[in-house]
Amino acid sequence: MNGIEKVKIARQERPAALVLKNAKIVNVFSGLIEEGDIAIEEGFIIGIGTYSGTKELDMKGRYVAPGLIDGHVHIESSMLTPPEFAKLILPKGTTSIVADPHEIANVKGVEGIRFLMASAHSTPLDVFMMIPSCVPATIFETSGAKITPADVLKMRDVKNVIGLGEVMNYPGVLHGDPDIHEKIAIMIDRRVDGHAPGLTGPDLNAYAVTGIKTDHECTTKEELEERVARGMYVLMREGSHTQNVVELMKGVTERNHKRLVFCTDDKHPEDIMAEGHINHNVNLAIHAGLSPILAIRMATMNAAECYGLRWYGSIGPGYYADLIVFSDLNEIEPEMVFKKGVLVAENGQALFEAKPYLDGTMTNTVRVKQKKIKLDLFLKQGKVHVIDLVPNNATTKKAVVTVKVDHGKYVQEPQSDLLKLAVVERHKNTGNVGLGLVRGYGLHDGAVAMTIAHDSHNLIVLGDNDEDMRLAIGEIVRINGGIVIIRNHQLADFLPLEIGGLMTNAKAEVVIDKLNAMDQIARAMGVKETLDDPFLSLAFLSLPVIPEIKLTDKGLFDVTKFAFIPIEAEEGC
Amino acid sequence: MNGIEKVKIARQERPAALVLKNAKIVNVFSGLIEEGDIAIEEGFIIGIGTYSGTKELDMKGRYVAPGLIDGHVHIESSMLTPPEFAKLILPKGTTSIVADPHEIANVKGVEGIRFLMASAHSTPLDVFMMIPSCVPATIFETSGAKITPADVLKMRDVKNVIGLGEVMNYPGVLHGDPDIHEKIAIMIDRRVDGHAPGLTGPDLNAYAVTGIKTDHECTTKEELEERVARGMYVLMREGSHTQNVVELMKGVTERNHKRLVFCTDDKHPEDIMAEGHINHNVNLAIHAGLSPILAIRMATMNAAECYGLRWYGSIGPGYYADLIVFSDLNEIEPEMVFKKGVLVAENGQALFEAKPYLDGTMTNTVRVKQKKIKLDLFLKQGKVHVIDLVPNNATTKKAVVTVKVDHGKYVQEPQSDLLKLAVVERHKNTGNVGLGLVRGYGLHDGAVAMTIAHDSHNLIVLGDNDEDMRLAIGEIVRINGGIVIIRNHQLADFLPLEIGGLMTNAKAEVVIDKLNAMDQIARAMGVKETLDDPFLSLAFLSLPVIPEIKLTDKGLFDVTKFAFIPIEAEEGC
Repeated sequence: MNGIEKVKIARQERPAALVLKNAKIVNVFSGLIEEGDIAIEEGFIIGIGTYSGTKELDMKGRYVAPGLIDGHVHIESSMLTPPEFAKLILPKGTTSIVADPHEIANVKGVEGIRFLMASAHSTPLDVFMMIPSCVPATIFETSGAKITPADVLKMRDVKNVIGLGEVMNYPGVLHGDPDIHEKIAIMIDRRVDGHAPGLTGPDLNAYAVTGIKTDHECTTKEELEERVARGMYVLMREGSHTQNVVELMKGVTERNHKRLVFCTDDKHPEDIMAEGHINHNVNLAIHAGLSPILAIRMATMNAAECYGLRWYGSIGPGYYADLIVFSDLNEIEPEMVFKKGVLVAENGQALFEAKPYLDGTMTNTVRVKQKKIKLDLFLKQGKVHVIDLVPNNATTKKAVVTVKVDHGKYVQEPQSDLLKLAVVERHKNTGNVGLGLVRGYGLHDGAVAMTIAHDSHNLIVLGDNDEDMRLAIGEIVRINGGIVIIRNHQLADFLPLEIGGLMTNAKAEVVIDKLNAMDQIARAMGVKETLDDPFLSLAFLSLPVIPEIKLTDKGLFDVTKFAFIPIEAEEGC
Repeated sequence: MNGIEKVKIARQERPAALVLKNAKIVNVFSGLIEEGDIAIEEGFIIGIGTYSGTKELDMKGRYVAPGLIDGHVHIESSMLTPPEFAKLILPKGTTSIVADPHEIANVKGVEGIRFLMASAHSTPLDVFMMIPSCVPATIFETSGAKITPADVLKMRDVKNVIGLGEVMNYPGVLHGDPDIHEKIAIMIDRRVDGHAPGLTGPDLNAYAVTGIKTDHECTTKEELEERVARGMYVLMREGSHTQNVVELMKGVTERNHKRLVFCTDDKHPEDIMAEGHINHNVNLAIHAGLSPILAIRMATMNAAECYGLRWYGSIGPGYYADLIVFSDLNEIEPEMVFKKGVLVAENGQALFEAKPYLDGTMTNTVRVKQKKIKLDLFLKQGKVHVIDLVPNNATTKKAVVTVKVDHGKYVQEPQSDLLKLAVVERHKNTGNVGLGLVRGYGLHDGAVAMTIAHDSHNLIVLGDNDEDMRLAIGEIVRINGGIVIIRNHQLADFLPLEIGGLMTNAKAEVVIDKLNAMDQIARAMGVKETLDDPFLSLAFLSLPVIPEIKLTDKGLFDVTKFAFIPIEAEEGC
């Protein structure tokens, strides 16, 4: 539809295709509630005022706000492919997302990013992409792929690509790493996302001066205020692991709110289903005392401005008709969700089907020759470094304990709280296996294995006997990635994550039910109740940038020393 | 300087080239005043905090704000070329402008736009260009050039071109004129400026739905509120003819101010010198009760956001070091002005020289063969339409009077308040002359002629005798355009506007002095004191879109009927 046709409808020379009548419009431009009709045609808002439509829907005085925008999300953390993810979040009112395909990129590189984008096409959800900046996350692990500056350049002008993903390598930025600086320079005219936990003062100036414009790792009022004052947008995060909105609300004012946006970062399907998506961030902000209109502005117009998404995030002539309808301005639960003028969800239910996008190269990513895999942990003596779990936290503590050694090998003792951990390289069939010991998980008589293992997503397996660990590895290979529990030498249960070992084409409900069932099995096998999630507790044990001690396929890594260390705490004799 | 070098300075690994110490920084991101130093290198702000510099300037607690931005200005209205204009406005704190070269484009088309851009290059001022959308303004006059959709396309991606100039042809937008719609469509991904006097309701929806994003013709609180609510930015104008800021301030709130910007539109050099430039808009808003920080935000960050000027309009790492220094937050009179880190003005004086940009094609735009010009006003009878001046207003009134006719020609009577008006086509030497009669100007024993005659800028001449009118035309031809006064058959004074007949390379002071001198001569010749400006009172008599009656080179035009009319009010016999 060209401008001339839009003008005719706006001027009431002919009726609009759809008119939402008698709405209380949340006008994020003016910051006011406005009563009126919204005329829609071919996906666009044409006019606000009094309009007639070929089809009319009476809003009966309910609120109509712009569709919500998630400013930073890893779709992969839902374990769902974009079509199923869209089905989950559109009913919650999120109509556009800025996705960072960092996880699939670690497995499949640019090909993985293109797969995510292609699979999103069949959904009503708008998925804008940031090209991951830090793949692999470190040189201390074997990833499935790399994203080079040339890849960033190649992807820069692809449709729906809007910038560079979170620059986690902030030490590289501060110390002049040419690779990360080159990637930023390539995307400088688009948007560059930050990741700046704890940066302050001159270091924050240095980080921002490169052109990095956002931070979603901000956890305190003071950090929020400093980031805003240095020209960054703060993405106020409320995800499954990390919840910052309530604390950050202490720093939000009418004066500074235009530089604030909401995001989820990582949120699991059961949490989205239970509490909502970006509407949950909005509701928390409202409960903390913020004017609902400002909270909605943050979730809509501000996000669109931050990411340069023109014609998104507002109710005005010429804007996309992404709209949510709800009754209570203080507790936003969308009763209707329109995406580009089409009713796509009603009363929490998606009105569209998710079409799985099939791509053989994505379902064949576990390359492990089992014969190559050695799980024996050779020790010259019994005083060893172990990884102490910190419940519900990606950090760990380094401890030294004395274990039993027999014929130069580690021996699992029945009453021990130690478990053997292996990180098996699974992308290139190198046979790399990193071995270590973990304390504080609680499992007995079995093993847990999975292919979600940040950031390189190798195969991570934990168990109290090598036989079950081997069986778990075998099952993972059989199902092409996912999560597996072996109990007493038998397959207890499994969730296939056949897409890159990270996601599944299964429905959200199936994934949620399966994870619940597997949680119960794990608890029955002794996994401690202090750990919120038996599986995600493992997922960050391989990420060698979070203190204090981690395990990659290349060995045990002391993050505080930023170097590999031997498992033996003392030289053997 | 690449990102790695910037990082080193931000992290204080080496001193910055320039540090402004002990500043009260107007932080438009946070909306707060922040005390600290500003580190600058190679035109960019590197960091805020505590910094050492190779050169340090102690601000001694004075305020430092971002350089001001004029959101919409016709440079030509200053009668100065960009270098002299820059010299005039930079000391007032305006460091970037969004220029609409509508006047020179009517004379010289794309070539004229390129000339303005090229001539701005030698100045520190950033001149961003909107390509004029309505050249010629109407089909009822002969302009020097046209801007076609193909021209708009050709100019779209030229450096410093940022969008389409004010869409004055709003009837064309509303009634589906394909030419104007095509121009808008070409620039839809950039910025499109509006011009929407009085539009409301469905018509305003229709105007905005095309993608037009601004309006600087807004004069009331209600209009401001409606435009903001429909997603448009309102440019609050304070120029020489039209002053809207004080009235519009009634509609400005903390909630809606982010959609408001300042502009001057048309402002003469003497007014800029006397009261300031955008800082005057800011001061008026502050005097009307707005928080100074919000007023400054409107003049800086908001303008930059409205026009997509990244890295302009804020004090933050990575932004251009466009800065103004002043002592009184409630009355902004810049004491120092930095442009891209260079001190370019101090205590109201520019610290740079204006370099005239010479272009022969611009100084040869008056093409009139005087022998072709016929000034006889033939009348079949004496009852005629005349143009009644409305003091200090671009509108006129249509009146009918009876005049003396001798041998079929109009005869000037000694005590009459009527004067003969001629609009002589001067671009193409067509010999076109439109003739009419004007009442209410007051001149006797002479003639005034000039080549500023909106919008086609033909040669307009007014006098009480044909001989002086001819002499005036001759002088205009001799000086290649400008303003001329003939008194008692002698050249009384003149101002050459040798660039397109609109601007001069002379200094602002020279132009101001000359205009003052010529004003005095005109008053001595009887021009009424009720007319603020003897020359600008003529400049709009040729613009056939402002009611009620105008004269173009093609004849007398009744704007209310939107048609040419004969000068005779009745059929002759």
